[in-house]
Amino acid sequence: MALVVQKYGGSSVATAERIRRVAERIVETKRKGHDVVVVVSAMGDTTDELLDLAQQVCPAPPAREMDMLLTSGERISNALVAMAIHSLGAEARSFTGSQAGVVTTSVHGNAKIIDVTPGRVRDALDEGSIVLVAGFQGVSQDSKDVTTLGRGGSDTTAVALAAALNADVCEIYTDVDGIFTADPRIVPDARHLEKVSFEEMLEMAACGAKVLMLRCVEYARRYNVPVHVRSSYTTKPGTIVSGSMEDIPVEEAILTGVAHDRSEAKVTVVGLSDQPGFAAKVFRAVADAEINIDMVLQNVSRIDTGKTDITFTCPKADGPTAVEKLTKLQGEIGFTKVLYDDHIGKVSLIGAGMKSHPGVTATFCEALADAGINIDLISTSEIRISVLTKDSELDEAVRVLHAAFGLGGDEIAVVHGGTGR
Amino acid sequence: MALVVQKYGGSSVATAERIRRVAERIVETKRKGHDVVVVVSAMGDTTDELLDLAQQVCPAPPAREMDMLLTSGERISNALVAMAIHSLGAEARSFTGSQAGVVTTSVHGNAKIIDVTPGRVRDALDEGSIVLVAGFQGVSQDSKDVTTLGRGGSDTTAVALAAALNADVCEIYTDVDGIFTADPRIVPDARHLEKVSFEEMLEMAACGAKVLMLRCVEYARRYNVPVHVRSSYTTKPGTIVSGSMEDIPVEEAILTGVAHDRSEAKVTVVGLSDQPGFAAKVFRAVADAEINIDMVLQNVSRIDTGKTDITFTCPKADGPTAVEKLTKLQGEIGFTKVLYDDHIGKVSLIGAGMKSHPGVTATFCEALADAGINIDLISTSEIRISVLTKDSELDEAVRVLHAAFGLGGDEIAVVHGGTGR
Repeated sequence: MALVVQKYGGSSVATAERIRRVAERIVETKRKGHDVVVVVSAMGDTTDELLDLAQQVCPAPPAREMDMLLTSGERISNALVAMAIHSLGAEARSFTGSQAGVVTTSVHGNAKIIDVTPGRVRDALDEGSIVLVAGFQGVSQDSKDVTTLGRGGSDTTAVALAAALNADVCEIYTDVDGIFTADPRIVPDARHLEKVSFEEMLEMAACGAKVLMLRCVEYARRYNVPVHVRSSYTTKPGTIVSGSMEDIPVEEAILTGVAHDRSEAKVTVVGLSDQPGFAAKVFRAVADAEINIDMVLQNVSRIDTGKTDITFTCPKADGPTAVEKLTKLQGEIGFTKVLYDDHIGKVSLIGAGMKSHPGVTATFCEALADAGINIDLISTSEIRISVLTKDSELDEAVRVLHAAFGLGGDEIAVVHGGTGR
Repeated sequence: MALVVQKYGGSSVATAERIRRVAERIVETKRKGHDVVVVVSAMGDTTDELLDLAQQVCPAPPAREMDMLLTSGERISNALVAMAIHSLGAEARSFTGSQAGVVTTSVHGNAKIIDVTPGRVRDALDEGSIVLVAGFQGVSQDSKDVTTLGRGGSDTTAVALAAALNADVCEIYTDVDGIFTADPRIVPDARHLEKVSFEEMLEMAACGAKVLMLRCVEYARRYNVPVHVRSSYTTKPGTIVSGSMEDIPVEEAILTGVAHDRSEAKVTVVGLSDQPGFAAKVFRAVADAEINIDMVLQNVSRIDTGKTDITFTCPKADGPTAVEKLTKLQGEIGFTKVLYDDHIGKVSLIGAGMKSHPGVTATFCEALADAGINIDLISTSEIRISVLTKDSELDEAVRVLHAAFGLGGDEIAVVHGGTGR
């Protein structure tokens, strides 16, 4: 008998019919003799509808009330799944994040889990119930207010519960059959991966692979919780995310896949003094605006002027704020101008095999060059190469890299719409 | 400076536009220098939509999960009102029933308030915030589960909070201008009442007046909380429910109004032994099925047979269960047959003046007789006369009684649709 944590995304519970199907899958797991804890996202469009209502009554809603509002979505979906389980003759009990002991920081809209004290969950399991926990939410340690965990929060709830309950596996049910070597919507022959190490998955998630959110993978790696990514709509085996890259024998180490990301914008600060401390001033200004920076490039200084340029990428949504903040500090920091480009895309090749195979970077650049795709900026890690391209060339970049490294499979992947949170 | 508790029903917050108007009224009260606590029902059709969803996933949903589901409706409306208040430049904080300290019994779907410990509400008031509390819900003392208070629960939440906070007044905002001498939809010249005693309001509510629910009035009377019933749509003065009937000087005591109720059914047990204990068996059987009985009539025994008939009324929804239960026990209890009639209506005349004015019952019966309306069953209290009629004759009965006792006013009441919970 195992303890299984399952998480179902919003599209998996978008209608009463889908809720009934999810309930069947949950009850099936329970009838195999396992203890089952289930985390469900809000139904399909619920969150968007609530956001729309909020916008109608208040242009800039306070974050605390926004959390109170949005968390009702998961209350609804979890109670409905509990009811559907009940109608199949099994016992089920739903808990809010707070009731399940998900204790967080007080940052409304983007709280971090500090601790999980699942006493009530454990008691309900011991009584033979299937336990439902509302994902994406918790209660702040200081003020005991309702908080939300930000994007991908339900996945994080599931992994955190799995860690706290010492579960055997955390199954993430989504609308795809697992992790692929590239997004099957762009690369039709993208190959399904049976197993991915935590490190590779971290790089994939950081580079825009949307199946698992970065924070969820970080949590799983830290607490060593095996994550099983599966489709809600099929019984295919999915992908197991577990173990360290170090455990993969060098000769078996391969390239994992190609990830892409359209969510970033590029900011360039032109004509900055190339002296110690000036780059720091730029990044401090951006950090003060609570903006996360991804890639960074500093050009070599021009001998004639002693000036340099700094380029960084950040989320598109934060781009205008970054530009505004820097422009305001132009006199204080000292630079010529700020350039902004939100028509960019990032494509990344990830794989533990990169370490032991020379020439990967060369092949990477050649493939893009052959397709006439210009590289704007390059950044690498031990197991990743990322470049910026024009957004209009991103899909083609994904396809040529996927082909150049022979990542394709024989099977054409089936694509379903939508993603949960 | 006063402490004011305000309650807004579901129709008052049915749209974003109405939510903004409610917010304006709340902020206006706050700007007059008062501390304000607000209880809001779920938006318009939310509850019906959630009930419909529940029905689709489970024909007989467990009550605990139903409470988890339905309470999200008030979470949504309260957070939205808090946001709307925020956009008007005032501070607002919303709390769930549990956070506001509304502690209840564990009877899901119909829990009773045991205690209110509004520590967090008080703290937020002290910090200058307007406080929103989700109505209709609490947390069970034993299991710490989310509970609901049943019909009219938000009114009860408001009155209970007003009592616990020692508020100066509890304002119930609804879709009518206050309490009238009869339902203005039936009697166009129904007169608005400025003030009604708790006892009179209790009888009105018990006899079908829907403006305030019985439990809310009982709570207000017990804790002596003045209740001010007002319209969300106008600034008319409304009706104050407060004080004891005993405080009304005899010469000023008058008739309060005519109430009606279409929600009951009539059950007659025919041919019961007229010996001690047999009636008790009938009522024990009905009580065991958790059915509330309203009116009761036992005929005089027939000399030839020593048998009698017992008639009672109960909610229409429970009628079939009552008949089934009694039929099952027919042999054990011993009677000839059970008759069932759900085409009945109850009309009641209420007023403290009844005590000191002889002839009220005679006028009552004459008025109905003159209109050709047959009386099926009569029951009276110190300040009330109620009779059963055919449901098709109920509206006419209300009108002729209202006219016979000269209760009409000059103004034609304005009627809005819908009621909250």
